[in-house]
Amino acid sequence: MASFANVTGLDPDIKVMLGSGGFSGEKRRDALCEAMRQHFGDIQQLLFVPYALHDGDDYVQKMIKAGYNADYDLVGIHNFDDPVAAVAQAQGIYVGGGNSFRLIHRLQQNRLVDVIRHRVVAGELPYLGVSAGTNVACPTMMTTNDMPIVQPLSFDSIGLVPFQINTHYYPGQIHIRDENGDYHQHFGETRLDRIREFHECQDVPVLGLWEAGWLMRTDEKLVLHHCPALLFRKDQQPQEIKVGEDLSFLLTK
Amino acid sequence: MASFANVTGLDPDIKVMLGSGGFSGEKRRDALCEAMRQHFGDIQQLLFVPYALHDGDDYVQKMIKAGYNADYDLVGIHNFDDPVAAVAQAQGIYVGGGNSFRLIHRLQQNRLVDVIRHRVVAGELPYLGVSAGTNVACPTMMTTNDMPIVQPLSFDSIGLVPFQINTHYYPGQIHIRDENGDYHQHFGETRLDRIREFHECQDVPVLGLWEAGWLMRTDEKLVLHHCPALLFRKDQQPQEIKVGEDLSFLLTK
Repeated sequence: MASFANVTGLDPDIKVMLGSGGFSGEKRRDALCEAMRQHFGDIQQLLFVPYALHDGDDYVQKMIKAGYNADYDLVGIHNFDDPVAAVAQAQGIYVGGGNSFRLIHRLQQNRLVDVIRHRVVAGELPYLGVSAGTNVACPTMMTTNDMPIVQPLSFDSIGLVPFQINTHYYPGQIHIRDENGDYHQHFGETRLDRIREFHECQDVPVLGLWEAGWLMRTDEKLVLHHCPALLFRKDQQPQEIKVGEDLSFLLTK
Repeated sequence: MASFANVTGLDPDIKVMLGSGGFSGEKRRDALCEAMRQHFGDIQQLLFVPYALHDGDDYVQKMIKAGYNADYDLVGIHNFDDPVAAVAQAQGIYVGGGNSFRLIHRLQQNRLVDVIRHRVVAGELPYLGVSAGTNVACPTMMTTNDMPIVQPLSFDSIGLVPFQINTHYYPGQIHIRDENGDYHQHFGETRLDRIREFHECQDVPVLGLWEAGWLMRTDEKLVLHHCPALLFRKDQQPQEIKVGEDLSFLLTK
């Protein structure tokens, strides 16, 4: 069974930035890139982990072409013969989105989970995760929205923060738009339902992070940026979190 | 790793009915119940598997109160000391919806996967699955939409049909309705994206089943009822399946 590692993350040197995903459009992209420059600072190169998508080369090229590299050199980890050594030498790591099951499966297969955790927690390696890259930064990837297309060894993940994040969060039922532009309600579980189900099985806080929002650790604080969020705790009403709010209280259990 | 069991299911005595979910409202409920009467025939009692939801008693009571039992006596398997014996003695089994990870986890913990498969494939036990109950009737539960709130022993499932089903299927992007009634596009993966990701890792057909649709095996045919569907194969364009179409070709590999 997956465990919830006790990561306190209180060392001020630890740099973690966790984005929800949904950074489409210039405005959202530019806001993300500006925060990335602040987060990673004056380094040249970012080690990019494209494992959540099928084609690593294509992913890296698209990220650069669309300007999501924030002027850093983006180097794909899939091109290294020794990915563990690549992490050991990196100055910054960016774990991209896609399918979280495939991502954690490949991180586990390549024995990267522990080395990433150790270097980030030691304050040596600033971490950026977006979407699936944020899911695997949690103690487990149990609050992903992705389809289980491959079976990982374990749902246990990197555990850079001691709480769970549900990326691409939205409230209420979803609606489907037909070819005439009419909207139809869908009856599948809402995110609220799914997170309640998680809390029927596990007792770890879950932060529902709206698209285009992110958490960033600066000056010993863990601050919510760009979009609001909802904090879910077992058997409690969800708590609204505003942009700029300090979530450091979540770093101590 | 999960395997894709070679279940041909060609024995005419095998009775399998697999619903998508989304049977809300009297009209959809009544259509489902009429098909259930045809499927299970003149028996008294159905063994209901409520494992996909947290509270089994509550689930059974709600099903009966809302009339989803189609006039059968619904008996919850969670109340039996020996659930394997309950399956061995049942005349019909109905596996309900909820969370597919929790459902398969409990089926595995209670050693029910094999006994259900054997009795259904032997033509002794008509099977009805809805939503999660349909996911676990596939070779694996890898095409579920649910959140991985518990880690099952394996993604391998009952395997009553040799293809995968994606329940609650819908096309295109989803939209969120705000408090003013305005709709906003969501940027998460579409079902098309997710099923393509599945086919990047696995080579098994996936039937995208719209809400309120079901498959039913009658007269040696496997027929789609009530709603259209889309059939996805690796590296091929999706194929539209119409109501009334015979999908028996999917039963031979």
